Amino acid sequence: MRSISVLGATGSIGASTLDLIRREPDKWRVVALTANGNAAGLARLAIEFRAEIAVVADENSLPDLREALAGSGIVASGGAAALVEAATRPADITVAAIVGCAGLAPTMAAIEQGRSVALANKEALVAAGEVMTAAVARSGATLLPTDSEHNAIFQCLAGNSYDHVRSITLTASGGPFLDWTMDQLHAATPAQAIKHPNWDMGAKISVDSATMFNKGLELIEAHHLFPVGLDRLKIIVHPQSVIHSMVEYRDGSTLAQLGPSDMRVPIASCLAWPQRMDTPLAPLDLAAIGELTFRAPDEERFPATRLCRLAAEAGGAAPAVLNAANEVAVAAFLAGKLPFTRIAVVVEQVLARYAPPPPVSLADVMAVDAAARAEARSVLELATK
Amino acid sequence: MRSISVLGATGSIGASTLDLIRREPDKWRVVALTANGNAAGLARLAIEFRAEIAVVADENSLPDLREALAGSGIVASGGAAALVEAATRPADITVAAIVGCAGLAPTMAAIEQGRSVALANKEALVAAGEVMTAAVARSGATLLPTDSEHNAIFQCLAGNSYDHVRSITLTASGGPFLDWTMDQLHAATPAQAIKHPNWDMGAKISVDSATMFNKGLELIEAHHLFPVGLDRLKIIVHPQSVIHSMVEYRDGSTLAQLGPSDMRVPIASCLAWPQRMDTPLAPLDLAAIGELTFRAPDEERFPATRLCRLAAEAGGAAPAVLNAANEVAVAAFLAGKLPFTRIAVVVEQVLARYAPPPPVSLADVMAVDAAARAEARSVLELATK
Repeated sequence: MRSISVLGATGSIGASTLDLIRREPDKWRVVALTANGNAAGLARLAIEFRAEIAVVADENSLPDLREALAGSGIVASGGAAALVEAATRPADITVAAIVGCAGLAPTMAAIEQGRSVALANKEALVAAGEVMTAAVARSGATLLPTDSEHNAIFQCLAGNSYDHVRSITLTASGGPFLDWTMDQLHAATPAQAIKHPNWDMGAKISVDSATMFNKGLELIEAHHLFPVGLDRLKIIVHPQSVIHSMVEYRDGSTLAQLGPSDMRVPIASCLAWPQRMDTPLAPLDLAAIGELTFRAPDEERFPATRLCRLAAEAGGAAPAVLNAANEVAVAAFLAGKLPFTRIAVVVEQVLARYAPPPPVSLADVMAVDAAARAEARSVLELATK
Repeated sequence: MRSISVLGATGSIGASTLDLIRREPDKWRVVALTANGNAAGLARLAIEFRAEIAVVADENSLPDLREALAGSGIVASGGAAALVEAATRPADITVAAIVGCAGLAPTMAAIEQGRSVALANKEALVAAGEVMTAAVARSGATLLPTDSEHNAIFQCLAGNSYDHVRSITLTASGGPFLDWTMDQLHAATPAQAIKHPNWDMGAKISVDSATMFNKGLELIEAHHLFPVGLDRLKIIVHPQSVIHSMVEYRDGSTLAQLGPSDMRVPIASCLAWPQRMDTPLAPLDLAAIGELTFRAPDEERFPATRLCRLAAEAGGAAPAVLNAANEVAVAAFLAGKLPFTRIAVVVEQVLARYAPPPPVSLADVMAVDAAARAEARSVLELATK
């Protein structure tokens, strides 16, 4: 029996994780479940899985959570400090699935435990970068990448040394606007951007997929997770999203991981690693799929990957600044206040205007994040005046 | 510095192996090199690589070999017993690359050493089956599969237990006749059959690729190498031959190995295993390749895989009988004495007529092989009367 905490239990990664746990109830003991503000949903899960503790990040939701859990014996708690405290409770594996920089502190707290952390929060690693990888090294934690691409790379690397890696290639679906012209892109609406062809995801990550910032952030993430050097990290557009990523070795062998577009596959890989566990997914049927296609990315129409590569090369605070600026710009786009093609422009401007020294602590990272958001908002105000 | 013997040094696998060794002369010491009858070619290689011993299987070529090696200090030897003696000389790794059942005895001798054997001779494993796998278990030898498909599977299995495998899929190019009608197949000539679209191979294996017997033999080979059960071994047609094979796990992850159609890739994987070594091959460029296609095999037009699966299910002597019958039928086809579509018919008839008890020794396997060949010849005589 293994113990597990799920930070971000009511989101899509949380739901996929708990779907797997639900199928093996005698193998898992649930420690902490957390949510942002969905007290009712969180309470339902906490009761079903007999969690030790349930935490809402938004303290305003705590009264509702307390009421819903009254008499259950499950501890109800709320607020940022409670989130960190929950992440600190010993668990064999913690699934870090809070979206955006809000997940940074609890993810770091889980890492400090020194056990296994299934990392689904790419923004946390992008923003914290070396601060997080240093914490992993210090605590001895095992970071298991849950993003389908990084999980694919993790599987393809199994048992091989980085010395033998010629290159790592992240596949990108290319998103819903793959074949759109610049004019079409300029007029793209939020509704169009969040219709992802292969994955059912939240709005923010769907827009990131449409701009290719998602792939760029994954490039930065891969740079931290798999330190083979940025020149050996590549991106290829593969619209069917069947191959999730690849590793090429110095002998000319390329290993690839393929699978359905269902997050339960990479999550199961993390939960069971280094073993395997069952998932209820149909076998891969390549004859039915028929063809897999590939093309080089177009960084003219989709400059995000170029910006992310530059930020990764710059290192230090640059990825945190880029990530914060992108979050603000995407929110403005989703609110109908910024054209789609200006998202990357805003990010590039913020990167040019704000270059703080490298963060060395979580507090530094949070400060850079806040300052970069403020900078992004002022760039947005100038742009929309 | 590691020691190596190459059984079948003048063939295409031998040439690819020695091309890799040639690039790392300070890392390898060559023990034995063997050939069938090409004394001049063998002597040239033996001198270049400073082999301890050079052996021709055909004793008639021994005088030429002796003359070519006079004064070199390299032992020249000839005949079946000398071949086995050479394979018995201690070497860290032996590449078993003699084509057909002629390679059976020296391959078994190499296995008896209890070290590493890179097995490129699929007929030996198909014919000897449990006799060979029992010898591997007894001697503690490490069998490293060199066929591109089995090497791909070997790489995709790295670190995973068979318990976690949902299925193993061998990819098949489909050969030069993939889209031919039955009428066209019936009129297919040897010249057409040996023009393989992706691989540059010998005549026998090229015909096997055209009939799909090659894939069927590989299915039997995989059945011995990776004992997950025949119901979990599948075949898919993939004309580009970029994915060499795949392993699907119980969690829905499929690992695939991709690479150029160059035997130096799987050979390098065997030579360096569990490390990696450099090869001079260009990186995989999927954007340039553009698309990979897949379809289910058509066992109406290409019954070979069905026959091979039946022989594997029957076990015992059946695969050896099938293999011998196929070698005889292919030779008749190459000699212009048998229509292409009759190859499988001859094999099926021999399987129906000759069902000896399971072989338990190498001598038994050789006897089954010889008797099956005789049976095949008599079937052929009936057919061509």
